[in-house]
Amino acid sequence: MPEFFEVVHRQRACRTFTAEDVPDEVVERLLEAATHAPSAENRQPWVFVVVRDEKMRARIGKLIRRAWEDGGRAYSEQRLEAGLLADVGRGATGGVGAAPVIIVACGDSSAAHERTLPSSVFPAVQNLLLAATAVGLGSALTTLATVHSGELASVLDLPEHVRPMAVIPVGHPARPLGAPRRQPVNEKAHRDRWGGGW
Amino acid sequence: MPEFFEVVHRQRACRTFTAEDVPDEVVERLLEAATHAPSAENRQPWVFVVVRDEKMRARIGKLIRRAWEDGGRAYSEQRLEAGLLADVGRGATGGVGAAPVIIVACGDSSAAHERTLPSSVFPAVQNLLLAATAVGLGSALTTLATVHSGELASVLDLPEHVRPMAVIPVGHPARPLGAPRRQPVNEKAHRDRWGGGW
Repeated sequence: MPEFFEVVHRQRACRTFTAEDVPDEVVERLLEAATHAPSAENRQPWVFVVVRDEKMRARIGKLIRRAWEDGGRAYSEQRLEAGLLADVGRGATGGVGAAPVIIVACGDSSAAHERTLPSSVFPAVQNLLLAATAVGLGSALTTLATVHSGELASVLDLPEHVRPMAVIPVGHPARPLGAPRRQPVNEKAHRDRWGGGW
Repeated sequence: MPEFFEVVHRQRACRTFTAEDVPDEVVERLLEAATHAPSAENRQPWVFVVVRDEKMRARIGKLIRRAWEDGGRAYSEQRLEAGLLADVGRGATGGVGAAPVIIVACGDSSAAHERTLPSSVFPAVQNLLLAATAVGLGSALTTLATVHSGELASVLDLPEHVRPMAVIPVGHPARPLGAPRRQPVNEKAHRDRWGGGW
Protein backbone atom coordinates (compact mmCIF):
# COMPACT_ATOMS: atom_id res chain seq x y z
CA MET A 1 0.00 0.00 0.00
CA PRO A 2 1.16 3.54 -0.75
CA GLU A 3 3.11 5.77 1.59
CA PHE A 4 1.19 8.56 3.32
CA PHE A 5 2.94 11.66 1.91
CA GLU A 6 3.04 10.22 -1.59
CA VAL A 7 -0.78 10.02 -1.53
CA VAL A 8 -1.18 13.54 -0.15
CA HIS A 9 1.12 15.07 -2.76
CA ARG A 10 -0.53 13.17 -5.62
CA GLN A 11 -4.19 13.98 -4.88
CA ARG A 12 -5.91 15.81 -7.71
CA ALA A 13 -9.52 16.39 -8.79
CA CYS A 14 -10.87 13.95 -11.41
CA ARG A 15 -14.11 14.82 -13.21
CA THR A 16 -14.39 12.27 -16.04
CA PHE A 17 -14.41 8.50 -15.57
CA THR A 18 -14.42 5.23 -17.47
CA ALA A 19 -17.44 2.93 -17.22
CA GLU A 20 -15.49 0.42 -15.10
CA ASP A 21 -17.28 -0.30 -11.82
CA VAL A 22 -15.91 0.14 -8.31
CA PRO A 23 -16.69 -2.86 -6.06
CA ASP A 24 -18.53 -2.42 -2.77
CA GLU A 25 -15.53 -3.51 -0.71
CA VAL A 26 -13.48 -0.67 -2.19
CA VAL A 27 -16.27 1.86 -1.52
CA GLU A 28 -16.42 0.56 2.04
CA ARG A 29 -12.70 1.15 2.43
CA LEU A 30 -13.18 4.79 1.42
CA LEU A 31 -16.08 5.15 3.86
CA GLU A 32 -14.01 3.62 6.66
CA ALA A 33 -11.34 6.26 6.03
CA ALA A 34 -13.98 9.01 5.95
CA THR A 35 -15.56 7.93 9.24
CA HIS A 36 -12.18 8.01 11.00
CA ALA A 37 -11.95 11.80 10.69
CA PRO A 38 -12.05 14.01 13.78
CA SER A 39 -15.22 15.95 14.61
CA ALA A 40 -16.37 18.49 17.17
CA GLU A 41 -17.05 16.62 20.44
CA ASN A 42 -16.46 13.40 18.46
CA ARG A 43 -20.11 13.58 17.39
CA GLN A 44 -19.38 12.22 13.90
CA PRO A 45 -22.28 14.14 12.35
CA TRP A 46 -21.63 12.85 8.84
CA VAL A 47 -23.92 10.88 6.57
CA PHE A 48 -22.81 9.33 3.28
CA VAL A 49 -25.29 8.37 0.60
CA VAL A 50 -23.61 6.05 -1.91
CA VAL A 51 -25.47 6.32 -5.19
CA ARG A 52 -25.00 3.52 -7.73
CA ASP A 53 -28.51 3.33 -9.21
CA GLU A 54 -28.36 4.57 -12.79
CA LYS A 55 -31.54 6.65 -12.69
CA MET A 56 -30.54 8.27 -9.41
CA ARG A 57 -27.12 9.17 -10.81
CA ALA A 58 -28.77 10.64 -13.88
CA ARG A 59 -30.99 12.83 -11.70
CA ILE A 60 -27.99 14.10 -9.75
CA GLY A 61 -26.11 14.67 -13.01
CA LYS A 62 -29.06 16.72 -14.29
CA LEU A 63 -29.08 18.92 -11.18
CA ILE A 64 -25.37 19.61 -11.61
CA ARG A 65 -25.79 20.41 -15.32
CA ARG A 66 -28.62 22.79 -14.53
CA ALA A 67 -26.60 24.61 -11.84
CA TRP A 68 -23.78 24.93 -14.37
CA GLU A 69 -25.95 26.21 -17.22
CA ASP A 70 -28.02 28.53 -15.01
CA GLY A 71 -25.10 30.55 -13.70
CA GLY A 72 -22.16 28.32 -12.77
CA ARG A 73 -20.52 28.56 -16.18
CA ALA A 74 -21.05 32.32 -16.48
CA TYR A 75 -19.51 32.79 -13.04
CA SER A 76 -16.53 30.52 -13.73
CA GLU A 77 -15.83 31.82 -17.24
CA GLN A 78 -14.53 35.06 -15.83
CA ARG A 79 -12.42 33.39 -13.20
CA LEU A 80 -10.82 30.16 -14.42
CA GLU A 81 -8.05 29.66 -16.95
CA ALA A 82 -9.11 27.79 -20.09
CA GLY A 83 -7.82 24.32 -19.15
CA LEU A 84 -9.47 24.20 -15.74
CA LEU A 85 -12.69 25.76 -17.09
CA ALA A 86 -12.93 23.04 -19.77
CA ASP A 87 -12.32 20.30 -17.19
CA VAL A 88 -14.90 21.66 -14.74
CA GLY A 89 -17.33 22.08 -17.64
CA ARG A 90 -16.87 18.46 -18.78
CA GLY A 91 -17.51 17.34 -15.20
CA ALA A 92 -20.61 19.50 -14.78
CA THR A 93 -22.20 18.55 -18.12
CA GLY A 94 -21.89 14.80 -17.82
CA GLY A 95 -18.62 13.66 -16.28
CA VAL A 96 -19.69 13.66 -12.64
CA GLY A 97 -23.12 12.14 -13.38
CA ALA A 98 -21.47 9.32 -15.35
CA ALA A 99 -19.16 8.21 -12.53
CA PRO A 100 -20.02 4.63 -11.51
CA VAL A 101 -20.38 5.76 -7.89
CA ILE A 102 -21.51 9.15 -6.59
CA ILE A 103 -21.13 9.70 -2.86
CA VAL A 104 -23.13 12.56 -1.37
CA ALA A 105 -21.63 13.74 1.92
CA CYS A 106 -24.15 15.30 4.27
CA GLY A 107 -24.18 16.99 7.68
CA ASP A 108 -26.66 15.80 10.33
CA SER A 109 -27.81 18.67 12.55
CA SER A 110 -29.53 16.25 14.93
CA ALA A 111 -26.08 14.82 15.78
CA ALA A 112 -24.20 18.10 16.27
CA HIS A 113 -24.68 21.85 16.35
CA GLU A 114 -25.28 23.23 12.84
CA ARG A 115 -22.29 25.57 13.13
CA THR A 116 -19.88 22.66 13.72
CA LEU A 117 -20.92 20.73 10.60
CA PRO A 118 -18.34 22.17 8.14
CA SER A 119 -15.37 21.57 10.48
CA SER A 120 -16.55 17.97 10.96
CA VAL A 121 -17.86 16.95 7.53
CA PHE A 122 -15.12 18.41 5.28
CA PRO A 123 -12.26 16.62 7.09
CA ALA A 124 -14.20 13.37 6.57
CA VAL A 125 -14.64 14.22 2.89
CA GLN A 126 -10.91 14.87 2.60
CA ASN A 127 -10.15 11.45 4.14
CA LEU A 128 -12.45 9.92 1.53
CA LEU A 129 -10.73 11.72 -1.37
CA LEU A 130 -7.28 10.77 -0.11
CA ALA A 131 -8.36 7.14 0.31
CA ALA A 132 -9.63 7.10 -3.28
CA THR A 133 -6.23 8.41 -4.40
CA ALA A 134 -4.50 5.75 -2.29
CA VAL A 135 -6.35 2.89 -4.03
CA GLY A 136 -5.79 4.39 -7.49
CA LEU A 137 -9.26 5.84 -8.07
CA GLY A 138 -10.22 9.33 -9.22
CA SER A 139 -12.56 11.56 -7.23
CA ALA A 140 -13.40 15.22 -6.68
CA LEU A 141 -14.98 17.44 -4.07
CA THR A 142 -17.82 19.23 -5.88
CA THR A 143 -20.39 21.56 -4.35
CA LEU A 144 -22.17 22.81 -7.49
CA ALA A 145 -25.21 20.56 -6.88
CA THR A 146 -25.73 22.13 -3.44
CA VAL A 147 -26.99 25.24 -5.28
CA HIS A 148 -30.13 23.12 -5.65
CA SER A 149 -29.76 21.73 -2.14
CA GLY A 150 -33.49 21.20 -1.55
CA GLU A 151 -33.92 19.25 -4.79
CA LEU A 152 -30.84 17.15 -4.11
CA ALA A 153 -32.19 16.36 -0.62
CA SER A 154 -35.48 15.38 -2.19
CA VAL A 155 -33.82 13.06 -4.76
CA LEU A 156 -32.06 11.29 -1.86
CA ASP A 157 -35.13 11.26 0.46
CA LEU A 158 -33.10 13.10 3.10
CA PRO A 159 -34.95 14.10 6.27
CA GLU A 160 -35.09 17.77 7.26
CA HIS A 161 -32.09 17.51 9.61
CA VAL A 162 -29.69 16.08 7.01
CA ARG A 163 -28.18 18.60 4.60
CA PRO A 164 -26.14 17.67 1.50
CA MET A 165 -22.74 19.40 1.62
CA ALA A 166 -20.64 17.81 -1.13
CA VAL A 167 -21.08 15.52 -4.14
CA ILE A 168 -18.10 13.23 -4.75
CA PRO A 169 -17.88 11.22 -7.98
CA VAL A 170 -15.68 8.13 -7.66
CA GLY A 171 -14.34 5.92 -10.44
CA HIS A 172 -11.42 5.10 -12.70
CA PRO A 173 -10.00 8.25 -14.32
CA ALA A 174 -10.80 8.57 -18.03
CA ARG A 175 -7.30 9.97 -18.58
CA PRO A 176 -4.14 10.17 -16.53
CA LEU A 177 -4.17 12.86 -13.84
CA GLY A 178 -1.18 15.18 -13.81
CA ALA A 179 0.48 16.55 -10.70
CA PRO A 180 -1.58 19.04 -8.66
CA ARG A 181 -0.63 22.70 -9.08
CA ARG A 182 -0.21 24.41 -5.75
CA GLN A 183 1.39 27.60 -4.47
CA PRO A 184 4.46 27.05 -2.29
CA VAL A 185 4.29 27.06 1.50
CA ASN A 186 6.13 30.38 1.86
CA GLU A 187 3.26 32.16 0.06
CA LYS A 188 0.73 30.74 2.49
CA ALA A 189 2.50 30.63 5.86
CA HIS A 190 3.48 33.34 8.33
CA ARG A 191 5.65 33.16 11.41
CA ASP A 192 4.03 34.26 14.69
CA ARG A 193 1.88 36.95 13.03
CA TRP A 194 0.53 38.09 9.66
CA GLY A 195 3.38 39.44 7.57
CA GLY A 196 5.97 37.59 9.64
CA GLY A 197 7.22 35.68 6.60
CA TRP A 198 8.11 31.99 6.59
CA MET B 1 7.43 6.22 6.22
CA PRO B 2 4.00 5.00 7.34
CA GLU B 3 1.36 3.49 5.13
CA PHE B 4 -1.59 5.72 4.20
CA PHE B 5 -4.50 3.80 5.79
CA GLU B 6 -2.53 3.11 8.95
CA VAL B 7 -2.18 6.89 9.48
CA VAL B 8 -5.86 7.56 8.78
CA HIS B 9 -7.05 4.87 11.22
CA ARG B 10 -4.67 6.00 13.95
CA GLN B 11 -5.41 9.76 13.94
CA ARG B 12 -6.71 11.01 17.26
CA ALA B 13 -6.98 14.40 18.99
CA CYS B 14 -4.11 15.27 21.35
CA ARG B 15 -4.55 18.17 23.76
CA THR B 16 -1.57 17.96 26.13
CA PHE B 17 2.08 18.02 25.08
CA THR B 18 5.60 17.66 26.40
CA ALA B 19 7.96 20.66 26.23
CA GLU B 20 10.02 19.05 23.47
CA ASP B 21 10.28 21.34 20.46
CA VAL B 22 9.23 20.57 16.88
CA PRO B 23 11.86 21.67 14.32
CA ASP B 24 11.00 24.04 11.48
CA GLU B 25 11.61 21.39 8.82
CA VAL B 26 8.97 19.17 10.41
CA VAL B 27 6.49 22.05 10.60
CA GLU B 28 7.19 22.76 6.95
CA ARG B 29 6.42 19.17 6.07
CA LEU B 30 3.01 19.53 7.73
CA LEU B 31 2.37 22.80 5.87
CA GLU B 32 3.34 21.18 2.57
CA ALA B 33 0.75 18.48 3.19
CA ALA B 34 -1.85 21.12 4.13
CA THR B 35 -1.23 23.19 1.00
CA HIS B 36 -1.73 20.15 -1.24
CA ALA B 37 -5.43 19.92 -0.34
CA PRO B 38 -8.10 20.55 -2.98
CA SER B 39 -10.01 23.84 -2.96
CA ALA B 40 -12.88 25.41 -4.87
CA GLU B 41 -11.53 26.59 -8.25
CA ASN B 42 -8.06 25.66 -6.94
CA ARG B 43 -7.93 29.09 -5.30
CA GLN B 44 -6.06 27.78 -2.24
CA PRO B 45 -7.59 30.41 0.06
CA TRP B 46 -5.78 29.18 3.17
CA VAL B 47 -3.39 31.05 5.41
CA PHE B 48 -1.39 29.39 8.19
CA VAL B 49 0.09 31.39 11.04
CA VAL B 50 2.71 29.29 12.83
CA VAL B 51 3.03 30.59 16.38
CA ARG B 52 6.19 29.68 18.30
CA ASP B 53 6.74 32.90 20.27
CA GLU B 54 6.07 32.17 23.94
CA LYS B 55 4.14 35.36 24.69
CA MET B 56 1.99 34.93 21.60
CA ARG B 57 1.19 31.36 22.56
CA ALA B 58 0.29 32.48 26.06
CA ARG B 59 -2.14 35.07 24.64
CA ILE B 60 -3.82 32.45 22.47
CA GLY B 61 -3.94 30.07 25.44
CA LYS B 62 -5.64 32.78 27.49
CA LEU B 63 -8.30 33.35 24.82
CA ILE B 64 -9.07 29.63 24.77
CA ARG B 65 -9.26 29.45 28.57
CA ARG B 66 -11.63 32.41 28.64
CA ALA B 67 -13.91 30.87 25.99
CA TRP B 68 -13.94 27.67 28.07
CA GLU B 69 -14.67 29.38 31.38
CA ASP B 70 -17.22 31.81 29.93
CA GLY B 71 -19.54 29.19 28.52
CA GLY B 72 -17.61 26.40 26.80
CA ARG B 73 -17.39 24.22 29.91
CA ALA B 74 -21.03 24.75 30.88
CA TYR B 75 -22.08 23.80 27.36
CA SER B 76 -19.86 20.72 27.19
CA GLU B 77 -20.61 19.46 30.71
CA GLN B 78 -24.10 18.48 29.65
CA ARG B 79 -22.94 16.79 26.47
CA LEU B 80 -19.64 14.97 26.90
CA GLU B 81 -18.84 11.81 28.83
CA ALA B 82 -16.46 12.32 31.75
CA GLY B 83 -13.25 11.15 30.09
CA LEU B 84 -13.60 13.33 27.00
CA LEU B 85 -14.78 16.30 29.08
CA ALA B 86 -11.68 16.07 31.29
CA ASP B 87 -9.41 15.84 28.24
CA VAL B 88 -11.03 18.81 26.48
CA GLY B 89 -10.88 20.76 29.77
CA ARG B 90 -7.15 20.05 30.20
CA GLY B 91 -6.59 21.26 26.66
CA ALA B 92 -8.64 24.42 27.09
CA THR B 93 -7.13 25.43 30.42
CA GLY B 94 -3.48 25.11 29.48
CA GLY B 95 -2.74 22.13 27.29
CA VAL B 96 -3.26 23.77 23.91
CA GLY B 97 -1.51 27.01 24.91
CA ALA B 98 1.51 25.03 26.12
CA ALA B 99 2.08 23.20 22.83
CA PRO B 100 5.48 24.17 21.38
CA VAL B 101 3.80 25.12 18.11
CA ILE B 102 0.31 26.50 17.56
CA ILE B 103 -0.86 26.73 13.97
CA VAL B 104 -3.83 28.99 13.29
CA ALA B 105 -5.58 28.06 10.04
CA CYS B 106 -7.38 30.96 8.40
CA GLY B 107 -9.58 31.58 5.37
CA ASP B 108 -8.74 34.43 2.99
CA SER B 109 -11.88 35.97 1.47
CA SER B 110 -9.79 38.02 -0.96
CA ALA B 111 -8.64 34.73 -2.56
CA ALA B 112 -12.03 32.99 -2.81
CA HIS B 113 -15.73 33.53 -2.21
CA GLU B 114 -16.53 33.57 1.53
CA ARG B 115 -19.00 30.70 1.14
CA THR B 116 -16.31 28.38 -0.28
CA LEU B 117 -13.87 28.87 2.62
CA PRO B 118 -15.00 25.95 4.84
CA SER B 119 -14.90 23.39 1.99
CA SER B 120 -11.37 24.60 1.12
CA VAL B 121 -9.78 25.31 4.50
CA PHE B 122 -10.96 22.26 6.50
CA PRO B 123 -9.59 19.71 3.99
CA ALA B 124 -6.24 21.49 4.28
CA VAL B 125 -6.48 21.33 8.08
CA GLN B 126 -7.23 17.62 7.86
CA ASN B 127 -4.12 17.07 5.69
CA LEU B 128 -2.11 18.89 8.34
CA LEU B 129 -3.49 16.75 11.19
CA LEU B 130 -2.89 13.54 9.26
CA ALA B 131 0.67 14.62 8.43
CA ALA B 132 1.32 15.29 12.13
CA THR B 133 0.08 11.77 12.88
CA ALA B 134 2.30 10.37 10.12
CA VAL B 135 5.46 11.87 11.65
CA GLY B 136 4.50 10.78 15.18
CA LEU B 137 3.29 14.12 16.53
CA GLY B 138 0.09 14.91 18.38
CA SER B 139 -2.35 17.58 17.16
CA ALA B 140 -6.00 18.56 17.37
CA LEU B 141 -8.55 20.57 15.43
CA THR B 142 -9.91 23.10 17.93
CA THR B 143 -12.34 25.92 17.21
CA LEU B 144 -13.00 27.19 20.76
CA ALA B 145 -10.77 30.26 20.28
CA THR B 146 -12.84 31.34 17.28
CA VAL B 147 -15.56 32.33 19.78
CA HIS B 148 -13.27 35.35 20.29
CA SER B 149 -12.48 35.53 16.59
CA GLY B 150 -11.90 39.30 16.50
CA GLU B 151 -9.45 39.17 19.42
CA LEU B 152 -7.61 36.22 17.93
CA ALA B 153 -7.34 38.10 14.62
CA SER B 154 -5.98 41.08 16.51
CA VAL B 155 -3.35 38.99 18.36
CA LEU B 156 -2.14 37.71 14.98
CA ASP B 157 -2.35 41.10 13.19
CA LEU B 158 -4.67 39.57 10.61
CA PRO B 159 -6.08 41.92 7.97
CA GLU B 160 -9.86 42.27 7.64
CA HIS B 161 -10.10 39.69 4.82
CA VAL B 162 -8.36 36.88 6.74
CA ARG B 163 -10.53 35.03 9.25
CA PRO B 164 -9.19 32.50 11.80
CA MET B 165 -11.07 29.20 11.43
CA ALA B 166 -9.14 26.66 13.52
CA VAL B 167 -6.40 26.55 16.15
CA ILE B 168 -4.15 23.50 15.90
CA PRO B 169 -1.67 22.72 18.69
CA VAL B 170 1.23 20.55 17.52
CA GLY B 171 3.80 18.76 19.66
CA HIS B 172 4.85 15.50 21.25
CA PRO B 173 1.95 13.86 23.12
CA ALA B 174 2.24 14.05 26.92
CA ARG B 175 0.81 10.53 27.12
CA PRO B 176 0.16 7.75 24.65
CA LEU B 177 -2.92 8.25 22.47
CA GLY B 178 -5.31 5.33 22.35
CA ALA B 179 -7.22 4.23 19.28
CA PRO B 180 -9.92 6.61 18.03
CA ARG B 181 -13.49 5.67 18.87
CA ARG B 182 -15.75 5.83 15.84
CA GLN B 183 -19.15 4.51 14.88
CA PRO B 184 -19.09 1.82 12.16
CA VAL B 185 -19.68 2.61 8.50
CA ASN B 186 -23.08 0.91 8.41
CA GLU B 187 -24.45 3.46 10.92
CA LYS B 188 -23.32 6.34 8.70
CA ALA B 189 -23.81 5.15 5.14
CA HIS B 190 -26.92 4.61 3.02
CA ARG B 191 -27.32 2.97 -0.37
CA ASP B 192 -28.86 5.12 -3.13
CA ARG B 193 -31.16 7.01 -0.72
CA TRP B 194 -31.70 7.81 2.96
CA GLY B 195 -32.83 4.66 4.76
CA GLY B 196 -31.43 2.42 2.02
CA GLY B 197 -29.10 0.68 4.49
CA TRP B 198 -25.50 -0.25 3.74
